[in-house]
Amino acid sequence: EIRKLLVLPGDHIGPEIIAEALKSLTVLEEERPDFKVQISYGLIGGASLDKTNEPITDEVLDAALSSDAILLGSVGGPEWAHVPGAISPEKGILRLRQRLDAFANIRPCRFCASSLMDQSALKSDVVKDVNFIVVRENCGGAYFGTKTEGEDEASDLWIYRRAEIERCARVSAALARTMVKDDKSPAIVWNADKANVLASGRFWRTVTHDVFEREFSDIELRDQLADSAAMIMVKAPTKLNGVIHTDNTFGDILSDISGGIVGSLGVLPSASVCGIPGEGPVKGIYEAVHGSAPDISGRGEANPIAQILSLAMLLRYSFSTPREADLLEEAVRKTLDSHDNNGLEIRTKDLGGSSSTREVGDTVASQFRIL
Amino acid sequence: EIRKLLVLPGDHIGPEIIAEALKSLTVLEEERPDFKVQISYGLIGGASLDKTNEPITDEVLDAALSSDAILLGSVGGPEWAHVPGAISPEKGILRLRQRLDAFANIRPCRFCASSLMDQSALKSDVVKDVNFIVVRENCGGAYFGTKTEGEDEASDLWIYRRAEIERCARVSAALARTMVKDDKSPAIVWNADKANVLASGRFWRTVTHDVFEREFSDIELRDQLADSAAMIMVKAPTKLNGVIHTDNTFGDILSDISGGIVGSLGVLPSASVCGIPGEGPVKGIYEAVHGSAPDISGRGEANPIAQILSLAMLLRYSFSTPREADLLEEAVRKTLDSHDNNGLEIRTKDLGGSSSTREVGDTVASQFRIL
Ligand SMILES: CC(C)[C@H](C(=O)O)[C@@H](O)C(=O)O
Ligand SMILES: CC(C)[C@H](C(=O)O)[C@@H](O)C(=O)O
Repeated sequence: EIRKLLVLPGDHIGPEIIAEALKSLTVLEEERPDFKVQISYGLIGGASLDKTNEPITDEVLDAALSSDAILLGSVGGPEWAHVPGAISPEKGILRLRQRLDAFANIRPCRFCASSLMDQSALKSDVVKDVNFIVVRENCGGAYFGTKTEGEDEASDLWIYRRAEIERCARVSAALARTMVKDDKSPAIVWNADKANVLASGRFWRTVTHDVFEREFSDIELRDQLADSAAMIMVKAPTKLNGVIHTDNTFGDILSDISGGIVGSLGVLPSASVCGIPGEGPVKGIYEAVHGSAPDISGRGEANPIAQILSLAMLLRYSFSTPREADLLEEAVRKTLDSHDNNGLEIRTKDLGGSSSTREVGDTVASQFRIL
Repeated sequence: EIRKLLVLPGDHIGPEIIAEALKSLTVLEEERPDFKVQISYGLIGGASLDKTNEPITDEVLDAALSSDAILLGSVGGPEWAHVPGAISPEKGILRLRQRLDAFANIRPCRFCASSLMDQSALKSDVVKDVNFIVVRENCGGAYFGTKTEGEDEASDLWIYRRAEIERCARVSAALARTMVKDDKSPAIVWNADKANVLASGRFWRTVTHDVFEREFSDIELRDQLADSAAMIMVKAPTKLNGVIHTDNTFGDILSDISGGIVGSLGVLPSASVCGIPGEGPVKGIYEAVHGSAPDISGRGEANPIAQILSLAMLLRYSFSTPREADLLEEAVRKTLDSHDNNGLEIRTKDLGGSSSTREVGDTVASQFRIL
């Protein structure tokens, strides 16, 4: 069986980190002759705008639809920064999410290597056991609602339909089951909304509770207002260990806070899936949480870890090779916890090291090989 | 000249912390015979729902309109938690903000006493010089847009009109001028939006830039996407020193992160003003950033500092007594940095101490007296 992978390198550091992730994929193909991947490439973001005047074309969207998974680099940059009337490169990501109906954005927050703990802005005892996954609704809410732009006002409709909330709740529940607590019961699901202010938030809460009562009554569901969740995430992040089930807008903000928690956005992966993980392979888009970092592009300084860990998520959810996913995460851990010939840690600048993008990518690939 | 103050104690710990703030106000009246305040009281939130079935009545709103300032306790609690169709106590706050047109919510984040630094979840070197003010648009955006609630969907309209953004930008600019940098130039204004995704965000950015170019060209205005601002706020909060100019929803979340930064929401004040601070007295609503803490209400454990510092903001913006405001902040600083007869720090539980609400309030009032 041949798996179809679409690679969209994107802009600035996107292609640089994609190249490193692909090295580990090559290792996998070499070591597991039964594992075959057919890779095709496409443009997205600024790279696509430059050639086609669109941040993503219909051909690329069609290619995405007929692939098993999409490995996506980061997108955007000042050269395409918004001029009145112009379309932003980031719209390419939104269109891709929408066209594939990649409705749940999964963003785990934990230390991928214990040696990274000292990178956190937070005190070690506050963060050390942090382990939560943000499940962000990805195809609805304010980012996709009807927009108006006038001379004197502009608006976005923050709308949720029952089915959109239900399917996202099912992803949250499925992940809670994979994150068992010490007593083997599923992790807590934290529902983060603003039910006290938003009609859509109140509806979000009602529907979420309905689904959990009906389908997942063994999973503990707790409400946490989104503003308060942001505060707790900084003050005592381990209190939110488990799954944070939240809407598109709040999920966008809450998941970025994770970058401060683990010390760098450079190590945070994400998956946008089109189905319930665990119930057979799901199609998905795999990308770093961080952006395209125009300030460091072309210097070989970018951290490839987030992209590599996104590939691990791809192996787990879309290629149904969870063991290989674990091994790739293990290779990342070993790389970050080890030293090079000069006794220096193998880390890029964002993590306080001086290794190049390539050095980190090569080390992960070679650690992956020996595992 | 007699100043008119409306006090709305609210629910749970609201009345407890309001009582402590009023002690310092009494000191001021005693020590400055020319300073006269006429206080009246009203209900809001659950307390109002219980008596009137409304989270705030027209009479109270009228009283607010004819006052110079409103000192507001915290609102809400599980006993009024949302049942389908029921109105939430928090709606009382929203109606008050809207009726007064208190369009800019000012939320400073810095250490009110240096001894609090060890309470932060963040490492000391990361937070020690933190000093930013979030200016949150307070009467527009998704929280106030047209709402729909149906069987299968619900929505809120995230809408901004030019004038709403302009007046908020003027508040941000005015505050930047009061926060001068070492070289005496105004502080940076950080504009936080999602112009890359939201039509309202794009409009927010355009209008903000227009206002600054036209009226405040000496002030440095920088854009920071709201998700990225959340990350920086945790990772390196001092990078955002200055004024963070942002919309209602993003401001709600970003300002709560401050609670993690300074270690407790219990010390964070806020002002919702109806005009530009500095251009003569402005009417305003002064409340703690935190909620009504039902879990500790009635135990005398609540931290009154946020409410007392909110009173200081009231003195500064609505009563035009900036010197007295400084002195009250100084009394808070002295209280938190000092010890009681047993050598114990004078702090409530949230700050790692064991003092009662009253003990902290009394100490601030007595420190205020001798200043
Ligand atoms: C680039 C942008 C469209 C995107 C979003 O807002 O969803 C990004 O911030 C993210 O979090 O993936
Ligand atoms: C209580 C609620 C209505 C309010 C808000 O969302 O504005 C609160 O969270 C705040 O931040 O002041």
